[in-house]
Amino acid sequence: MSPFRASVPLTKSWEHFEFTVDDGVATVTFDRPEKLNALTFDVYADLRDLVAELPHRGDVRVLVLTGKGRGFCSGGDVEEIIGELQKMDTAELLEFTRMTGAVVKAMRETPIPIIAAVNGVAAGAGSVLALASDFRLLAESAKFAFLFTKVGLAGADMGSAYLLPRLVGLGRATELLMLGDKLPAARAEAIGLANRVVPDAELAGEAAALARRLADGPALAYSTTKVLLTRELDSDLGSSIELEAITQALLMTAKDHKEFYAAWAAGRSPQWTGR
Amino acid sequence: MSPFRASVPLTKSWEHFEFTVDDGVATVTFDRPEKLNALTFDVYADLRDLVAELPHRGDVRVLVLTGKGRGFCSGGDVEEIIGELQKMDTAELLEFTRMTGAVVKAMRETPIPIIAAVNGVAAGAGSVLALASDFRLLAESAKFAFLFTKVGLAGADMGSAYLLPRLVGLGRATELLMLGDKLPAARAEAIGLANRVVPDAELAGEAAALARRLADGPALAYSTTKVLLTRELDSDLGSSIELEAITQALLMTAKDHKEFYAAWAAGRSPQWTGR
Amino acid sequence: MSPFRASVPLTKSWEHFEFTVDDGVATVTFDRPEKLNALTFDVYADLRDLVAELPHRGDVRVLVLTGKGRGFCSGGDVEEIIGELQKMDTAELLEFTRMTGAVVKAMRETPIPIIAAVNGVAAGAGSVLALASDFRLLAESAKFAFLFTKVGLAGADMGSAYLLPRLVGLGRATELLMLGDKLPAARAEAIGLANRVVPDAELAGEAAALARRLADGPALAYSTTKVLLTRELDSDLGSSIELEAITQALLMTAKDHKEFYAAWAAGRSPQWTGR
Repeated sequence: MSPFRASVPLTKSWEHFEFTVDDGVATVTFDRPEKLNALTFDVYADLRDLVAELPHRGDVRVLVLTGKGRGFCSGGDVEEIIGELQKMDTAELLEFTRMTGAVVKAMRETPIPIIAAVNGVAAGAGSVLALASDFRLLAESAKFAFLFTKVGLAGADMGSAYLLPRLVGLGRATELLMLGDKLPAARAEAIGLANRVVPDAELAGEAAALARRLADGPALAYSTTKVLLTRELDSDLGSSIELEAITQALLMTAKDHKEFYAAWAAGRSPQWTGR
Repeated sequence: MSPFRASVPLTKSWEHFEFTVDDGVATVTFDRPEKLNALTFDVYADLRDLVAELPHRGDVRVLVLTGKGRGFCSGGDVEEIIGELQKMDTAELLEFTRMTGAVVKAMRETPIPIIAAVNGVAAGAGSVLALASDFRLLAESAKFAFLFTKVGLAGADMGSAYLLPRLVGLGRATELLMLGDKLPAARAEAIGLANRVVPDAELAGEAAALARRLADGPALAYSTTKVLLTRELDSDLGSSIELEAITQALLMTAKDHKEFYAAWAAGRSPQWTGR
Repeated sequence: MSPFRASVPLTKSWEHFEFTVDDGVATVTFDRPEKLNALTFDVYADLRDLVAELPHRGDVRVLVLTGKGRGFCSGGDVEEIIGELQKMDTAELLEFTRMTGAVVKAMRETPIPIIAAVNGVAAGAGSVLALASDFRLLAESAKFAFLFTKVGLAGADMGSAYLLPRLVGLGRATELLMLGDKLPAARAEAIGLANRVVPDAELAGEAAALARRLADGPALAYSTTKVLLTRELDSDLGSSIELEAITQALLMTAKDHKEFYAAWAAGRSPQWTGR
């Protein structure tokens, strides 16, 4: 556990998705397969809280998001979310949209790398959860659909209009967000939205291999890389270079860099501790 | 008409290009085909004023830009613009360059989506007008040429050095803007500068179909998507997510989102009003 | 020489790489081929100082970076840099990382366009030097490897986490910087990191031709294009358009633009002076 915990307990049980931790690799599996893993208010709330809590556990170095069944995550449930929204007042609506945004903000800001193993359709908020991850591995049958305008809402949702242009360029992002049409896996890879597309049967194995590599490797190096990538999207050239200079000087004093040099000098492979 | 008009009349006649409005779709057709639709001072001024005025009319939901004849727009006319610039003093030159920039700023900031139907060569300022649009549909014979350096000027013109890297990345933008060489339609599509390339004979039909879709659909959803895409290029992660949360809460109170849910519950297609 | 020199002399001899100037084209050739041109403290220091000094010489309009032998630049020498870092205190480490960042900052901010002629492997800091250039021409045998995490350091080094997402998008940049795996030349071209890939034997000729074109052309137009591309990555839409309006008005008063018009009117080719 993090040395910096005081009164707040860690959560024992996450009730709205499957959650496992295995030797540094945490996995969230959306498990309402009969609904293509549509989100509910509770899934959002648990995601927000889990991502915030993960770095405090001390036993997690990478997070994998995936779905059970044919879908990854089909976005907000029409009955359980959109239906309920019809009854809410302005302040409640804003509390809801702020919660959904908080999930993405936490995903981008956590020092823990996140892999989306997109096993099927990622639609609406489900596509933004994949977008907010650091790596996107797609099954061949996977599809994205930023379908917000198809329900009469802005294509800008949970940070999608911030993130997508920074991944695929403004022109492609405009088309995807404004029209909300389906994007097949191969096309997602071609435009830089997917890192890799693999046969459906190999997705879990590929995601596990990448997660293992990130968990067993120089975790501090990986996590600072992620954090600086996030921050430097919003930082100018000079400030970014200074931030990298200070960060790198810090990492030069850490165990893993010294271990690299000792291993190199001894002609052996480094034994990373992630410290 | 917008309820927020006071003394200033709407313009009855645009004299420096063809202008039509048909059931929510406004179309500007550059019509100096014998000059490949080269721009004059008056075309710039009319474009600046038209784009500012469009949202006030109340009858336009999408704007299409296209050209008559073999060209889309070949940029500033060498005689009528470059020749005249030779006689101007510093203050006049700056007034001219600010006018050209104001066209692009208005295009990016208007809540009305803009489709460039690029029917032939788009050169110099013509290529920037296409760049400042939200969608770029290209005829197979179309070409881009950011040819500013070929006339001894900066490749950074009318916002090109801001926009192009955000569409195609800094490396490709540097080459295109610094060298000013021709970019064929297929290559423009490959790098994310064109949304789609179609046979020349199909361009008008494709553009009309997209315009119709945007005009008949949930127009408030489309226009907020555009506006947030524009703003979030200049906004950090946290502010962008907040802006999206507030916008989405607003749209959840609007007619089209309620209509989506009512239609879904009734098992029918939504009848969008764009309100 | 620049008219704005006072006491500080220009450097007569650059001792840590080959340096030539030929009719406006400066060339830095890394020349420790037996080490794949690994960097030393002195190479970094000389690069930092050279890039700062170049615009003051008055005889250089473009800079070419290339390597002797099989490699372009393999990054920091494991013995001569990483080994030495193990002995340094915190302040010394920061002085080192700030020096390396200063090289990239100077490369991005100098008004002189820079061509990286990547003749072989560009690894670690070597890959960032190529990244910080304006043009990247790659030999078929060239490879990139942002291998910082493989030595236990942050993938964010010398501005890489600022620059790479702006060239290839956040998704691809995350994978390249976090994992540090090799990127072949053809893939670098496909994602916008390389401008062009040519057979190894043709690289020097291609780089020379591009350098010649930049040196002989409208140099002020080229250099302002570069400088605005750099600045507008950090500038909002409105400010960028204003910066371009002011810059373009300035260039309209300069010799090369007037020469373009005079040449056009006379039916001859322009004779650029770069002024």
